[in-house]
Amino acid sequence: MLDKALSYANENRGRFLAELKEVLTIPSISTDPDHNPDMQQAAEWMASQLRSLGMDNVQIMPTGGHPVVYGEWMGAGKSAPTVMIYGHYDVQPPDPLELWTTPPFEPSVRGENLYARGAADMKGQVLASLKAVESVMRSGTMPVNIKWLIEGEEEIGSDHLDDFIKNHKELLACEFCLNPDAGILGEDLPSITTGLRGLAYFELRVYGPVKDLHSGLFGGTVHNPAQALMELVAGMHDKNGKVTLPGFYDKVRKISKKEHRDFLRLPMNKKSLLEMTGVPALWGEPQFIPSERIGGRPTLEVNGLLSGFTGTGSKTVLPAWAMAKISCRLVPDQTPEETIKQMKKYLKEKAPKDIKWELEYLHGAGPALTSTDNPGVRALSQAMESVWGKRPLFPREGGSIGVVVQLQKHLKADSVLSGFALPDCDAHSPNEKLHLPTFYKGIDTLIHFFYNLK
Amino acid sequence: MLDKALSYANENRGRFLAELKEVLTIPSISTDPDHNPDMQQAAEWMASQLRSLGMDNVQIMPTGGHPVVYGEWMGAGKSAPTVMIYGHYDVQPPDPLELWTTPPFEPSVRGENLYARGAADMKGQVLASLKAVESVMRSGTMPVNIKWLIEGEEEIGSDHLDDFIKNHKELLACEFCLNPDAGILGEDLPSITTGLRGLAYFELRVYGPVKDLHSGLFGGTVHNPAQALMELVAGMHDKNGKVTLPGFYDKVRKISKKEHRDFLRLPMNKKSLLEMTGVPALWGEPQFIPSERIGGRPTLEVNGLLSGFTGTGSKTVLPAWAMAKISCRLVPDQTPEETIKQMKKYLKEKAPKDIKWELEYLHGAGPALTSTDNPGVRALSQAMESVWGKRPLFPREGGSIGVVVQLQKHLKADSVLSGFALPDCDAHSPNEKLHLPTFYKGIDTLIHFFYNLK
Repeated sequence: MLDKALSYANENRGRFLAELKEVLTIPSISTDPDHNPDMQQAAEWMASQLRSLGMDNVQIMPTGGHPVVYGEWMGAGKSAPTVMIYGHYDVQPPDPLELWTTPPFEPSVRGENLYARGAADMKGQVLASLKAVESVMRSGTMPVNIKWLIEGEEEIGSDHLDDFIKNHKELLACEFCLNPDAGILGEDLPSITTGLRGLAYFELRVYGPVKDLHSGLFGGTVHNPAQALMELVAGMHDKNGKVTLPGFYDKVRKISKKEHRDFLRLPMNKKSLLEMTGVPALWGEPQFIPSERIGGRPTLEVNGLLSGFTGTGSKTVLPAWAMAKISCRLVPDQTPEETIKQMKKYLKEKAPKDIKWELEYLHGAGPALTSTDNPGVRALSQAMESVWGKRPLFPREGGSIGVVVQLQKHLKADSVLSGFALPDCDAHSPNEKLHLPTFYKGIDTLIHFFYNLK
Repeated sequence: MLDKALSYANENRGRFLAELKEVLTIPSISTDPDHNPDMQQAAEWMASQLRSLGMDNVQIMPTGGHPVVYGEWMGAGKSAPTVMIYGHYDVQPPDPLELWTTPPFEPSVRGENLYARGAADMKGQVLASLKAVESVMRSGTMPVNIKWLIEGEEEIGSDHLDDFIKNHKELLACEFCLNPDAGILGEDLPSITTGLRGLAYFELRVYGPVKDLHSGLFGGTVHNPAQALMELVAGMHDKNGKVTLPGFYDKVRKISKKEHRDFLRLPMNKKSLLEMTGVPALWGEPQFIPSERIGGRPTLEVNGLLSGFTGTGSKTVLPAWAMAKISCRLVPDQTPEETIKQMKKYLKEKAPKDIKWELEYLHGAGPALTSTDNPGVRALSQAMESVWGKRPLFPREGGSIGVVVQLQKHLKADSVLSGFALPDCDAHSPNEKLHLPTFYKGIDTLIHFFYNLK
């Protein structure tokens, strides 16, 4: 049956790719209300896939925000384990548009890659899961029960998913969750992520004069809000790259000697990072190696800045306001709730009296760790060994996945984090791409994974 | 003849306003190449006004940028003085558009004010000059020779005007230049500006990774360019509001005791500035009074900021670049050339090695002072006394007017700086307005001015 399923997958690659391209044409940008109809269309596309797989109880279920697509197959019986498969149908905004070689929602194959917004993060990963299940089911029977949870708010923090999971504990009950949103470390470096950083995302707005002023007629007597913002945000790091929010490191778990050795084995090092990013030199806490700074240490990043006149040419304006988007990546045992308090405390202590400020907490998630003894991790590890011929690595990574924390909290279900996107896939950047040979390997891996769970 | 001219002006107010509204509908935004056709239309409108006044030799003369409108009337003869009248037909960009009550290029009278981009800065002032000359010429003869110099690049630094004046020294030769671009200090506070700050306008760009990165996957190992920019620009002021560019204050002329007394007489004080700006508290060098900080001290202002994701919602991006528009206001004896060197020196000393930076100098002008003994200043001072019933004040102001420096340099002609725009006119801001009663007083004042020059 394994061989039959693998043959099925191999024979249907052309159709799988065509279906992936189809869903990639839908600009399902969750952060932009103008794209709500596209969100609905993407959800319907997913539901229709589940139905054609023979899933039961397929529903597009409302949340406080974008809907969740649910479907299940419980035909393996009560004695078999139930595996949840997680996915998200929303994508990041595609801007800056001018840097895309081909338009973000017109999927284009060049060389071994498929280019489109969402190709890697994560419509390609959802398709790999759907097509692995299809291959297994069309070739005999699925050895485990399956529940699908495909949300539409991952790129904006999965805020409404928390309530959704809490309110549907029975429906969603499972042994563990396969989450293919984390990617692997390289084309030839299969990996299962055992740690994820959390997130706390803020928008900080500084207000000065009631309106934009002439910088000549008023400059020298008014604290420029753009300057005040820069002073505040620049002060959020010290000279060694440490975050200065009061108490920020108090709950940060120390990296053990064993963990340090694991981090040392990871391929993410000075050389690879310099190559991937193109920066003249790396930056960060000097007492930690780069993979630790990404997987084991918290950060504070400026994600966006806006104030005054930003067009071509010049305008001698003293702006009325300035805005920064700022997000912290959190590690065990930090929490978004404490980070909010620390940020507020910093601003209360440091903000000068000659400006006004407003801090908006946009969204966040706690950090997470999964044991290498989890049965899903073991099954996926064996599957990777079958397909790649080597044992996977077990990194702790820098990204944040809200659902991982929520499933742990409400269902006591750990997540098996992996996927088939590569580190240079440009998720969140222009020219996002999916490496197709790895995508097909991913389908094979998941076919093995299901049989390993027998 | 004076009375006849004043009556003429009074009787024709309705038509003057209609003509002003007409020119205010032209969006002559010099900084935006998309508006080049509007620039041409505004220049033609000015030339047609000069012709209808009976000016000779009216020409739209090319420069390296937007053209200059020239016209002259030399009928007063060689023994009479020649007065240049300066104006500019370009305006600032109108954004942010959403803050305008009525559209910026659809002039609208509400109460005593006319609202439109350019109403105060400075199409209204050019109209007042045109209509004063018209009133005098239609009521007898003009006692002085007149030359008009109406440029199209004031709002972008008058860069090409410098060459234009240098190349047309004979054509433009004059005793002094009436420049009504400076405004007065209040509805009941006529004033002639005897000092102006200079300007050096920069765009600073900081580059980090070759493309936007996922802040989770790379954050902690790459110096975020938005953060690096903030660190650099925040460091351009110390805690007391002093600019830290090396040598910035070396050439700044000390404010004498007499000048300090003049500054004290000005109505620009803590109370008025708090009212006009709406800030919670003033800011600036504590050892100087507010009017000195504006008129007698140099500044460095952030005019614009842009980096990363600035739309609604969140995007967890580590941006590839960040940009700040920064301008310095200069006082005697600073020069833009030295300021460029100081800015470069600062950046070379302070910029970290893990980012790249680019500094572009966009434009600038030196600072200027005019004596209260200038015959034009005396004639205008008497005219103001006739119309307002009080002697004007003689402030030194914070704005920058490139042509003032250029006329002094090439023609040895000082500028008589005044005008009829009020401090709350919102030049460069949304809802720019011209106070119409003061505009009409301005026409009367200039009629007196010409007869005072006899």
